[in-house]
Amino acid sequence: MSATDFVLDPRLAADTVAVTSLPLCEVLLMNDARYPWLILVPRRAGLVEITDLGAGEQTRLWQEVNRASAALRAVAPCDKLNLGALGNIVRQLHVHLVARREGDAAWPGPVWGNGPAVPRATDAKTRLVASLHRQLAN
Amino acid sequence: MSATDFVLDPRLAADTVAVTSLPLCEVLLMNDARYPWLILVPRRAGLVEITDLGAGEQTRLWQEVNRASAALRAVAPCDKLNLGALGNIVRQLHVHLVARREGDAAWPGPVWGNGPAVPRATDAKTRLVASLHRQLAN
Repeated sequence: MSATDFVLDPRLAADTVAVTSLPLCEVLLMNDARYPWLILVPRRAGLVEITDLGAGEQTRLWQEVNRASAALRAVAPCDKLNLGALGNIVRQLHVHLVARREGDAAWPGPVWGNGPAVPRATDAKTRLVASLHRQLAN
Repeated sequence: MSATDFVLDPRLAADTVAVTSLPLCEVLLMNDARYPWLILVPRRAGLVEITDLGAGEQTRLWQEVNRASAALRAVAPCDKLNLGALGNIVRQLHVHLVARREGDAAWPGPVWGNGPAVPRATDAKTRLVASLHRQLAN
């Protein structure tokens, strides 16, 4: 299937706000004030596992993950980045990138499955998205 | 630092059994009968984040993750692969690869932080390691 068939899973859309579009991936910010948390979604329909992407696009995915990591660290200094591709609930291929601080709401456990999200205040969310967008434009 | 300085973190060593050595990574099997669960550890000292690896070795890491994914799926058919690089507890860079089945002990949550491991019976562990070793020799 081609990029033109791609539709963002409505559960990912509901939980996030759009930051920017990179050449392969949509970059989304999880609307959860507990953690600076990005989700990258390759704009290709029908993907579930990373190996569903061809080798060239896998390389591109990891390049964009690196780029998003640098942007996230620039706006949200952290003790450890967490990377995850689970998909147990939402099967559409997506990669989580979470800036973790020692003592944060789930530390040292994983963020996934750790209680309901705490929505961000509108102003703070707008500022964070703008900062991330600026970082990713570089 | 060079490969010769590499020492596997003793907590990773205690929780796993060795499967094989790929060109970049040690491949370990978590000693947890609840899930078919591999851990890949690049044999480079001092790594914490994936971006601590140079671009060429990052490509190699993801190639070896793909190769390990195929081996894991061959011996343990699953509904979803879970990939994670967390490092909140053990900072030495390592990548988790877990074959998840619907209804397994943590489904649909993450395996990390989900109670103590259930050690594998010795015979079953030996057979599984041998099967994985054979797959990864291909």
